[in-house]
Amino acid sequence: MKINGVSYRSIWRPADDAQSIRIFDQTRFPWNVEILALRDAGAVAHAIRTMQVRGAPLIGAVAAYGLVFALQEDASDATLAKAAEDLVATRPTAINLRWAIERMVRHLSPFSPAERVAAGYAEADALCDEDLQVNEAIGRHGLELIREIWDRKGRQGRVNLLTHCNAGWIATVDWGTALAPIYMAHDEGIPVHVWVDETRPRNQGSLLTAWELGSHGVPHTVIVDNAGGHYMQAGEVDMVIVGTDRVTAQGDVANKIGTYLKALAAHDNDVPFWVALPSSTIDWRVRDGVKDIPIEERNQNEVLFMTGRTDDGRPGHVRITPENSPAANPAFDVTPARLVTGLITERGRCDASEAGLKALFPDGQ
Amino acid sequence: MKINGVSYRSIWRPADDAQSIRIFDQTRFPWNVEILALRDAGAVAHAIRTMQVRGAPLIGAVAAYGLVFALQEDASDATLAKAAEDLVATRPTAINLRWAIERMVRHLSPFSPAERVAAGYAEADALCDEDLQVNEAIGRHGLELIREIWDRKGRQGRVNLLTHCNAGWIATVDWGTALAPIYMAHDEGIPVHVWVDETRPRNQGSLLTAWELGSHGVPHTVIVDNAGGHYMQAGEVDMVIVGTDRVTAQGDVANKIGTYLKALAAHDNDVPFWVALPSSTIDWRVRDGVKDIPIEERNQNEVLFMTGRTDDGRPGHVRITPENSPAANPAFDVTPARLVTGLITERGRCDASEAGLKALFPDGQ
Repeated sequence: MKINGVSYRSIWRPADDAQSIRIFDQTRFPWNVEILALRDAGAVAHAIRTMQVRGAPLIGAVAAYGLVFALQEDASDATLAKAAEDLVATRPTAINLRWAIERMVRHLSPFSPAERVAAGYAEADALCDEDLQVNEAIGRHGLELIREIWDRKGRQGRVNLLTHCNAGWIATVDWGTALAPIYMAHDEGIPVHVWVDETRPRNQGSLLTAWELGSHGVPHTVIVDNAGGHYMQAGEVDMVIVGTDRVTAQGDVANKIGTYLKALAAHDNDVPFWVALPSSTIDWRVRDGVKDIPIEERNQNEVLFMTGRTDDGRPGHVRITPENSPAANPAFDVTPARLVTGLITERGRCDASEAGLKALFPDGQ
Repeated sequence: MKINGVSYRSIWRPADDAQSIRIFDQTRFPWNVEILALRDAGAVAHAIRTMQVRGAPLIGAVAAYGLVFALQEDASDATLAKAAEDLVATRPTAINLRWAIERMVRHLSPFSPAERVAAGYAEADALCDEDLQVNEAIGRHGLELIREIWDRKGRQGRVNLLTHCNAGWIATVDWGTALAPIYMAHDEGIPVHVWVDETRPRNQGSLLTAWELGSHGVPHTVIVDNAGGHYMQAGEVDMVIVGTDRVTAQGDVANKIGTYLKALAAHDNDVPFWVALPSSTIDWRVRDGVKDIPIEERNQNEVLFMTGRTDDGRPGHVRITPENSPAANPAFDVTPARLVTGLITERGRCDASEAGLKALFPDGQ
């Protein structure tokens, strides 16, 4: 997608410096756009650990190159195993990170040490290209929904979408998941407008999604998480579209805390509520998401304090609660499948149900 | 209620300085507890205009004394009319302010100028006492609900309540509306715990409600507005209780933005959702709240910036959104009566319906 008119992926290998990768330092978004060069496994581990890269697909892609950088130093079986272990440990709960590293190890193990670096670059490049293709397919399948709304409105006014958190291109290699259809609709001239949920406590919506959309030129308005229900009642939302961290075999959707409240409001106002995901997000082992998905509890300081920029542009950090009041900070909630209009995957759309998922993914288990 | 063990009202007339009132400077909450002495109408107007006092009932009470202070200077009919007009203009949309001033003028007009100051103090004192009695009655009627929950739980564990925004004692003369039953339950030894919604964008929950509850010793936990649905799914909320800015003749409830989302989640999880209000809040002229209550749009800076305290305790102000992203800021939403378990008024509890309201208020119109 674009930043000020220039097209980027969120990770790339420069032709003139092909034994390194470039990423954006996402800890600097939205205040600064800074490109980092990574050329050794230690720098990759540091970038993941400090969240210079974030978003499950992107973390996996960056880690894949980290493994290749380690093999550049020493392509032995021992280094392959040790580097894989170190990289997975940088974010122990990131399922996609483990998936990417395991794929790389499985692919590279049969090669002789002399062949591993070249094979590694090829496989990491392939992993990135596949992520892009998956998101591009999600985008196309979601775009059809936006086109239908635009036609149904007689191609008058604008199509109002609402999203929560950040499921955009900077969390993936490109396109994003929930935002992919929106970028495609915008690029083909449909006048879309996005209500961007702030997404407390980490504000990924007002910080990252608003910045992404603005940088690509997509009209949007930041709202507090409390406001979406009101806009749905007022007929100002044509469709809700969000990403997800995990979808269960029966179609329950774990996503950033607050998603469930928007799904309830969409249901109450007959607003379609769609979830965009790569099929790697489906957890076939779990059925009842509300009962069986454990919810991560994060540090209460995310609720008690707020960071931003002072009037003179410097980083600022303020306490926003009384000294003696504790906070709780659940990071995710689960939206039951009954509130989900449907799922948008790289293979097409389906009902958020076991039957719907099995029809698209008969091999799923 | 108490601040660090000492009982206060939010407005009082000291025995040894009876021609003045004391209020808390609420712009300093929760960071500082500062008592202000007001002894002339100009100071009262300033206090209302700058939100040193807030909360509809409290504003009305403070304004009533402001009128008496003006009459102390000159008790003529002309001054009575002019001072009333000036005071109403300080917050033109505050219905309760106009109601209090009109009541004072109606009461004082028949008196001769020589009698007006004494009669004015008596009437303003009466107005305060009545507000306290109304809230105390709301508290008693709501307390019964908390007692029932505590009994139903076999008097084990704790009673978990969730509230949104601030409907506490500092918005009234004492007790508050939604918080009155909670204070009473706590004071009689029921182990209550309150989930305090942050209430973006102005954070009245995490700033004022958390401070109020903490100062009185009531256990509570601040959560972001996104989290309440998750806690209801998890069985961690026994009852939701909120205040309201306006209740329609059919029981629709206008309250701080985001209330509707909590009502949806309560309904989806069979959690009782109660609204506490003085009957002066009922607007008998409006039936369909979603259709017919206009929603105030406030300044977008409330969404784009956040104020708090820096590490060294000074006021801090940070931008929390990208420079070029606009924001929208609707201040209220409307919860349809069908989602409201019931209303708690000074006359008792009733269904959120025309029949329910008419049974308690046959004189309502």
